[in-house]
Amino acid sequence: MSVNLNAPNPAELYPIAGVRIGVTEAGIRKVNRKDLTVVLIDEGAAVAGVFTQNRFCAAPVQICREHLVRGKGIRAMLINTGNANAGTGEDGRARAIHTCKALASALKIDAAQVLPFSTGVIMETLPIERIEAGLPAALADAKTGNWLRASEAIMTTDTVAKAFGAQVMIDGVQVSITGISKGAGMIRPNMATMLGFMATDACVCQEVMKQLALELAEGSFNRVTVDGDTSTNDSFVVIATHKAAHAPITSLDSAAGQALKAAMLGVAQKLAQAIVRDGEGATKFISIKVEGGQTQAECRQVAYAIAHSPLVKTAFFASDPNLGRILAAVGYAGIADLDQTGIDLYLDDVHVALKGGRNPDYREEDGQRVMKQAEITVRVVLGRGKASDIVWTCDLSHDYVSINADYRS
Amino acid sequence: MSVNLNAPNPAELYPIAGVRIGVTEAGIRKVNRKDLTVVLIDEGAAVAGVFTQNRFCAAPVQICREHLVRGKGIRAMLINTGNANAGTGEDGRARAIHTCKALASALKIDAAQVLPFSTGVIMETLPIERIEAGLPAALADAKTGNWLRASEAIMTTDTVAKAFGAQVMIDGVQVSITGISKGAGMIRPNMATMLGFMATDACVCQEVMKQLALELAEGSFNRVTVDGDTSTNDSFVVIATHKAAHAPITSLDSAAGQALKAAMLGVAQKLAQAIVRDGEGATKFISIKVEGGQTQAECRQVAYAIAHSPLVKTAFFASDPNLGRILAAVGYAGIADLDQTGIDLYLDDVHVALKGGRNPDYREEDGQRVMKQAEITVRVVLGRGKASDIVWTCDLSHDYVSINADYRS
Repeated sequence: MSVNLNAPNPAELYPIAGVRIGVTEAGIRKVNRKDLTVVLIDEGAAVAGVFTQNRFCAAPVQICREHLVRGKGIRAMLINTGNANAGTGEDGRARAIHTCKALASALKIDAAQVLPFSTGVIMETLPIERIEAGLPAALADAKTGNWLRASEAIMTTDTVAKAFGAQVMIDGVQVSITGISKGAGMIRPNMATMLGFMATDACVCQEVMKQLALELAEGSFNRVTVDGDTSTNDSFVVIATHKAAHAPITSLDSAAGQALKAAMLGVAQKLAQAIVRDGEGATKFISIKVEGGQTQAECRQVAYAIAHSPLVKTAFFASDPNLGRILAAVGYAGIADLDQTGIDLYLDDVHVALKGGRNPDYREEDGQRVMKQAEITVRVVLGRGKASDIVWTCDLSHDYVSINADYRS
Repeated sequence: MSVNLNAPNPAELYPIAGVRIGVTEAGIRKVNRKDLTVVLIDEGAAVAGVFTQNRFCAAPVQICREHLVRGKGIRAMLINTGNANAGTGEDGRARAIHTCKALASALKIDAAQVLPFSTGVIMETLPIERIEAGLPAALADAKTGNWLRASEAIMTTDTVAKAFGAQVMIDGVQVSITGISKGAGMIRPNMATMLGFMATDACVCQEVMKQLALELAEGSFNRVTVDGDTSTNDSFVVIATHKAAHAPITSLDSAAGQALKAAMLGVAQKLAQAIVRDGEGATKFISIKVEGGQTQAECRQVAYAIAHSPLVKTAFFASDPNLGRILAAVGYAGIADLDQTGIDLYLDDVHVALKGGRNPDYREEDGQRVMKQAEITVRVVLGRGKASDIVWTCDLSHDYVSINADYRS
């Protein structure tokens, strides 16, 4: 059911010097599926992460935040599917810490140098004995070229693995970027997606990494939504291994910083959009541009109101140009002084609404033509300023209901 | 698909002295269905209304607000289905005014004494010639006992008509109350429902009526949601005809004011809950109580986050006690300093989560038992204060998607 989303192109998934990945089947929830991943990072890399703003954040998210603050130098990540270790209280924290210690012991590093990630069912006990039992096989599998296997091993309700890469010249040195992500439901990231990991061999100072991670998330994962449900486990981590032989990047505003950020943002946006393209039950990929706002924040607020409206989403599913539903969502988005007579609405190139009413030149068959496409751009012009923003989402189909009514069974 | 919602009981729909209702088939969108209603109000009645906060409010909502402010004494209401006259710009306003003038002319009153209401498809031109042509038949049908026919004539995607009544003694005088409502989708009223009308023969000063309408809406229609889509046309109007021979109610805090308000609130809550029970595709009626908050507002914010979560709603549809989804919604409700370790969760009498984690005594079969019921109470205890609030909602089923993917066809 994914929308224009192909399996990852192995040729594009550049090995990143300084990052080795190992995968195994630990039987965490179901047998015969890859569900445990270790990511081993050479000493000296800079690592930063952004995490869910959900107050019910999962135990591994809490531990990730604490370990990043400790600043001992992150050397490994441990990722399991099948169980989110969320809504599990103190016991969940203890179990997350236990798995960090187990991996740290095998690698002879400090437990605070390990970042744990879990995704899957909420409010069930993490089976740490299965994770511990799976570690030797995962470590034995570790190699530089394992990004594709990792993208498969972190899938839950995803139907397609998500992995993209890019290369960019920095100071005459070729730098590689590779990233993976997972997620299809409970997607309205607020700082990051369910799980997203990117690595580069570029040389980026640790001081700049946090800002880089924030700006990448802001321009990619924080622009997508499937169902408006902000996950308990959203995590996005960026690794720079410092293996490329260019001068260290000490500012994102430098020419090198801008070039690297642009290349990484391209990969991050593909990863984020891949989550929407693979959104549970998705049959359409919708870009919602809101322009002419007073602030970028109000444009995004309007875009999300449209993106979350079940009526708008079902109209897209039906390819029905029932476009009054979009205007209704604009109206309830929460902009107190919005003047409806200033608003224009476009579907791709079709001018649907003019100054808050139906455009006299609008013909239903033109709207119908666009609505039948698999990729649609909704453009709302608020007519009250110069700010703009964009959000990517998908439609709401029968399959979304089926998938989420059956998820645990 | 409605949940424990029977057709109106005619014995409960008390005629209200001073209010006559007429209904006809005007063929506004489809033939052979009642789609035009006139409500004729004797001189001297007090009338107040509350309307949608959607900035894209429909033309009739704008005209209603203006006519109520004019204060000429409301003498008639004109209600059509099949067309919402929303997103129709200046032309829509002119058409709404035109219908008021047509009815005013027939009744020999001022157009500003007419309130217009429209519900149906958004962004299509209101066929005023059909409405005008239908007026004589509607007026000829006008009688006191027509509440049941009116409740049927205002239905759109509703599967059951919604009408309730009550009687109460005020100063030893028996007072009657009758109300009707419609709505099943695009339901997250913000001040009022799609359409709700209540009348009483009680004697309530005009100065008190606005407050009465606000408090009734606040305790009923502003507590329900189906899909989170605040309509462009929400309107709730309360009429007191002053025909009952008790002393005028000059304050809602008086004994008479409190008695009348309590009786009217009972009817308003039944009308509001009926909309949820008849929610598009609904198979479950869910009450969401949030307790132990610092303010009522934050309790309601949490309750709506749960009520709007597609993941929570599909879990109810599946009768699946996937209760971590409820905790996740609590977590992203937007309470910045919420401490997850203070939170308890109950499904009816079953204590599911204790201090943010799974209650050790919780057994899945107990949760399963409650989830299979047609009526379920979710109770969240935030553990940070003494405030509480309640919201009523329904589940999200395949039929919701079908109904909204097919609505216009």
